[in-house]
Amino acid sequence: MNRLSLNQWTTRRWSVPEAVEGCRKHGIEAIGLWREPVAEYGLAETVRLVRDAGLRVSSLCRGGFFTGGTWLRDNRAAIDEAAELDAACLVLVVGGLPGVVPGEPPGLRTSRDLAAARTHVAEALESLVPYAEERGVRLALEPLHPMYCADRAVLSTLKQALDLAEPYPAERVGVVVDTFHVWWDPEVFDQIARAGDRIASYQVCDQLTPLPADVLLARAMMGDGVIDFAPLSAAVAAAGYTGDIEVEIFNADVWAADPDGVVETMKRRYAELVLPQD
Amino acid sequence: MNRLSLNQWTTRRWSVPEAVEGCRKHGIEAIGLWREPVAEYGLAETVRLVRDAGLRVSSLCRGGFFTGGTWLRDNRAAIDEAAELDAACLVLVVGGLPGVVPGEPPGLRTSRDLAAARTHVAEALESLVPYAEERGVRLALEPLHPMYCADRAVLSTLKQALDLAEPYPAERVGVVVDTFHVWWDPEVFDQIARAGDRIASYQVCDQLTPLPADVLLARAMMGDGVIDFAPLSAAVAAAGYTGDIEVEIFNADVWAADPDGVVETMKRRYAELVLPQD
Repeated sequence: MNRLSLNQWTTRRWSVPEAVEGCRKHGIEAIGLWREPVAEYGLAETVRLVRDAGLRVSSLCRGGFFTGGTWLRDNRAAIDEAAELDAACLVLVVGGLPGVVPGEPPGLRTSRDLAAARTHVAEALESLVPYAEERGVRLALEPLHPMYCADRAVLSTLKQALDLAEPYPAERVGVVVDTFHVWWDPEVFDQIARAGDRIASYQVCDQLTPLPADVLLARAMMGDGVIDFAPLSAAVAAAGYTGDIEVEIFNADVWAADPDGVVETMKRRYAELVLPQD
Repeated sequence: MNRLSLNQWTTRRWSVPEAVEGCRKHGIEAIGLWREPVAEYGLAETVRLVRDAGLRVSSLCRGGFFTGGTWLRDNRAAIDEAAELDAACLVLVVGGLPGVVPGEPPGLRTSRDLAAARTHVAEALESLVPYAEERGVRLALEPLHPMYCADRAVLSTLKQALDLAEPYPAERVGVVVDTFHVWWDPEVFDQIARAGDRIASYQVCDQLTPLPADVLLARAMMGDGVIDFAPLSAAVAAAGYTGDIEVEIFNADVWAADPDGVVETMKRRYAELVLPQD
């Protein structure tokens, strides 16, 4: 149980101090932070609070979105923040097709050149690695479910993420294994085995079916969807991953519920469904 | 242009005779039929109508859904119908996880054993091939976009479909390349090349972004979404496919529009965006 981490978006109503207090109260030893609430509370204040609480920062979400005009500056800032927070990794959600805005239909400035978009991701990564190296930050490429390919991440499979990470040391560029994004992939077990010490983060949540009207909110509490966690947890463990296991849920009902109740359910479902069996 | 085929679901309001007349009127030489409207009009009547109109039947949609209790009988009936119609192939949508009903949340009878579900698909296929062989019908495995993995098809990539087809002769078990389902796949060009004469059907439509509330209706007229058709058409042509190119659109706006207007737009967009360039 001591590897369980609360990704703060799971209890989105909680501010940074409320989430830190929630971890303390419920005996959770690690937290996954998001840049926006950290900025709101203050970076230095968050660093102090997390350190005083003795919490590990299992990840900082997120860098990436390399299609925006200020991506280089934004990502350097994210790396700086991850270094300050001593986060185990900075999660990178690489962005979709250039000119596609999440939630909006394609427009005149939309590119449909997927191959070029993917090449740009490789180039952007190359330009960020030295900066991350200097600051001792581990970048973590997150493949997203293919349903987000157009608007959020042209990085769609674990294989693709590992191919992209391959030129760099594993401690500098890792990958995120997120059950929601990878469970459907016929290659997932082979690729988790291949990943080995590239696994920088193991994130868990379930997938709703039917998908909700806003597919971004299709992430669900473990047990409320269709994912079988045990084989994925076993594969991640067999690959050698011993880091924190982060529960990250985007779900309207979960966000509307009492956060303390959500954390209780999360702990119970984690123990029942996710925890790697020895 | 003479390879363009109207999948009848694109003009869903049209009955079989209306769709056949629509093809005649708009100079379209091939049609993709669906079992339900064919049954409604009558199989023998459809055979006669299509033959008298000189139309090719580019595909019959669809067999599969191997999770239902009557799948074997249903699929044998579908094979019989495909033989009667002299369809170029019978499209197989293999079904999702056992006990998942499209549109409904998981229940007590839902299985989360994806590996077992995929093994069952291989076994079901094996049991159908001799029956298809006797009747001279070509089965066409259709990988569906991973967002349908739980409820419609545990067959999620072209690679997986080709692996499944491999034990059988190409003229007996082929695959469907549907732009909507495969465009995001980092392996798609390699797998199309590998497919070669296994390509039994090339289906085209675009993908809406953002995804609509019912993701089944995310298929769009070419040009209204984010897919770049030219490289996919070129790859399919380079693999040796010379069969019909079927436009299959599930989309509330397209279904609400005047079918003759839809067919006119389809012809124009096909010529502009899809037609393989020499």
